[in-house]
Amino acid sequence: MVTYNLNLGWIADDEANEKMAEAFGNLVYEREKGVAGYYNLPENSKLIVSEVEAYAASNETVQRCNTVVVIGIGGSSLGTKAIDSMLRHKYPHARRLLFLENPDPVDLEAKFSSIVKEKTLFIVISKSGTTVETMSIFKAVIAHFDLDLDGKDKERIIAITDEGSALCHFVDRHALKAYTIPHNVGGRFSVLSSVGIVPLTLAGYDTCTLLSGAAAMVERFFNGEEEHLLIKSAFIAETWRDYRMNVLFAYGTFLEDFTKWYVQLWGESLGKIDRCGNRVGPTPLGHIGSVDQHSFLQLIIQGPRDKSVTFLKVENFENNLKIPDIKLDYIEKSDYVNGHTFNELINAECDATRESIAGEGVPVDSVTLDKIDEADIGELILYYELLTSLVGAMLHIDTYDQPGVELGKRILVKKFQKAR
Amino acid sequence: MVTYNLNLGWIADDEANEKMAEAFGNLVYEREKGVAGYYNLPENSKLIVSEVEAYAASNETVQRCNTVVVIGIGGSSLGTKAIDSMLRHKYPHARRLLFLENPDPVDLEAKFSSIVKEKTLFIVISKSGTTVETMSIFKAVIAHFDLDLDGKDKERIIAITDEGSALCHFVDRHALKAYTIPHNVGGRFSVLSSVGIVPLTLAGYDTCTLLSGAAAMVERFFNGEEEHLLIKSAFIAETWRDYRMNVLFAYGTFLEDFTKWYVQLWGESLGKIDRCGNRVGPTPLGHIGSVDQHSFLQLIIQGPRDKSVTFLKVENFENNLKIPDIKLDYIEKSDYVNGHTFNELINAECDATRESIAGEGVPVDSVTLDKIDEADIGELILYYELLTSLVGAMLHIDTYDQPGVELGKRILVKKFQKAR
Repeated sequence: MVTYNLNLGWIADDEANEKMAEAFGNLVYEREKGVAGYYNLPENSKLIVSEVEAYAASNETVQRCNTVVVIGIGGSSLGTKAIDSMLRHKYPHARRLLFLENPDPVDLEAKFSSIVKEKTLFIVISKSGTTVETMSIFKAVIAHFDLDLDGKDKERIIAITDEGSALCHFVDRHALKAYTIPHNVGGRFSVLSSVGIVPLTLAGYDTCTLLSGAAAMVERFFNGEEEHLLIKSAFIAETWRDYRMNVLFAYGTFLEDFTKWYVQLWGESLGKIDRCGNRVGPTPLGHIGSVDQHSFLQLIIQGPRDKSVTFLKVENFENNLKIPDIKLDYIEKSDYVNGHTFNELINAECDATRESIAGEGVPVDSVTLDKIDEADIGELILYYELLTSLVGAMLHIDTYDQPGVELGKRILVKKFQKAR
Repeated sequence: MVTYNLNLGWIADDEANEKMAEAFGNLVYEREKGVAGYYNLPENSKLIVSEVEAYAASNETVQRCNTVVVIGIGGSSLGTKAIDSMLRHKYPHARRLLFLENPDPVDLEAKFSSIVKEKTLFIVISKSGTTVETMSIFKAVIAHFDLDLDGKDKERIIAITDEGSALCHFVDRHALKAYTIPHNVGGRFSVLSSVGIVPLTLAGYDTCTLLSGAAAMVERFFNGEEEHLLIKSAFIAETWRDYRMNVLFAYGTFLEDFTKWYVQLWGESLGKIDRCGNRVGPTPLGHIGSVDQHSFLQLIIQGPRDKSVTFLKVENFENNLKIPDIKLDYIEKSDYVNGHTFNELINAECDATRESIAGEGVPVDSVTLDKIDEADIGELILYYELLTSLVGAMLHIDTYDQPGVELGKRILVKKFQKAR
């Protein structure tokens, strides 16, 4: 179960109420007309789970594998990585997921050296099939591991891409296994499409329950049962010029990749020029508790009042590691936590920090998971996707495009053309 | 060699010039009067290096170790971690450094299971000796590994703390090996004190060269040879209300921990109430290229003009991994990088992104390392520390305290007292 608590110090006025109703209507429209396809993924992707499970159960190459390599960047990797990081400790026997994302040769070579080809599946993911980082890394993988695309390594390679894309044609030519991404699902909203579901299912996670949790959230939201989402969106859309940043303060090291997924989702969706030509968009920041209490907290408390803070917390880590009841001479001052679990300590730190921040008048809200399980993670993903769509609708922007990054890509091509 | 390039679209007026002169004078004063001790670390810590090297060469317990565990949080770990991440790939035979920071039981147990006591040194670091996370983890380590503080495990434990602190008294009682941190060096400025130098030297890094690079930067700065630092500081201090965020966009996966160190250094130093009672402080953000070009870049380009961007780049990765000259049917579009190295690709992406951002009128600057080596890393650290002190002086704040985090600590204690 996920619970949501708002302490924003803000009350919706009539105008905000109207905005909420209008944005809700927008999302209903987007869903019905297929403007954004992610609303339907929790239902539609269940078929992919069955297909992948059946394939994995019957395929010897898959069964011999202990590693699934994901070749993809941005929306093609962040969501999968986030879910893997959250669930990993509960699945010690799941296949290892390894992400080849950054075209950093030091990073790539270190990862290459940990891969045994005979025990590895390679999944290459690109919506367009033209992402220069992904295609370059794919080529390096082919060369380094001497992959035979038409022969003995055929079953070791899976592609995930848009129907009709360049990568899709490539796959057809070599008759490789492939899954498609719906056209109306953008990279950063694609984690519950084949993009995330194929590697996560192959790793051995219960993706069916993940999708059920997400589906339930979609249903409840469109039934009007998740009003807190509308209020939080309206608060962000109305006040982002004052509270320019939203800090997602997540308590637990395994939540760090989730904060990165959230940063992409918000950054790429909400940083836009609106229909009146204004530059808009709150900035997302990810921080990890309690480590970053020793880093960023001072700035939140005494710095400018330009941030709102969301606390993400897991009530039950399902881990009983205790702070032993040891007394060390002279350092008795921290003995007050002796005998308690680290689970209690990290969560008490979360609560104490939230109280101290809220006490300073900083707008605060919390998202609390009972425990880490697939259903709650599915809900959490939909929560953030719906929030993003709502804020985008209220800001009058196109939440689903990313025109700003095209110029850099063109400059990059020119740099290499000059070099020739 | 490190080179600095400013493209801020900003020219210092008379008032700004006065501010620069005044801030420079402040730093001279801080150094002379010992207000901040970090200016002298590059020279003073050389003694620590010799002492640790001699100790390591003569001590059998150290020689049997392949792992150095650092128990510390925030300023006691971030800097060491940053340097370790940057240098690791050049030192395949260095001892592993493992950081026990976050009181997250899942994270702790995973790390515990990778530690073999007989091959491990444990370094516990806390300025005050009362940091609740660090002391709790230290107790858990004592219990889990059954450490005998007064007998056979004595040489396996090292403490780093302020003279006269609670931890210092504890160390004396058990006659454990210890190093002190100068009183006038705060946690976030402490990486070149014993805090970083002891674990990094024990791991096997060339900390002497690290300190030399830092010392040279201090000398050049106080000789008035690093004017770019004054200009950048003045720009930040003068314009932070417009450019509320500084994004450190670092190209290379191994730079991620450095961005976290920078976020702490700025966040905790510059987020303050100034002497007129105003809340001030720009917000630091860390991002990694080229991955985050697929994430955060859209927000920088089309979102509000409330960010400046610093590009951190390494010219020569000293790695020749190439994008193979393979042609894949239908996906020829990315062939323009074929035959080039990944080093060329990631840096061309950095340059293209910088050009596209600068072209939009976003204030941009770059810090470029010729290659990753100890001297350049030492310089880079001092560059950021001096920048922080300068901005702090110009904002009329106390750069070196952190009063904002105390309330949360008091609330935490109360939570546990109630629970009893």
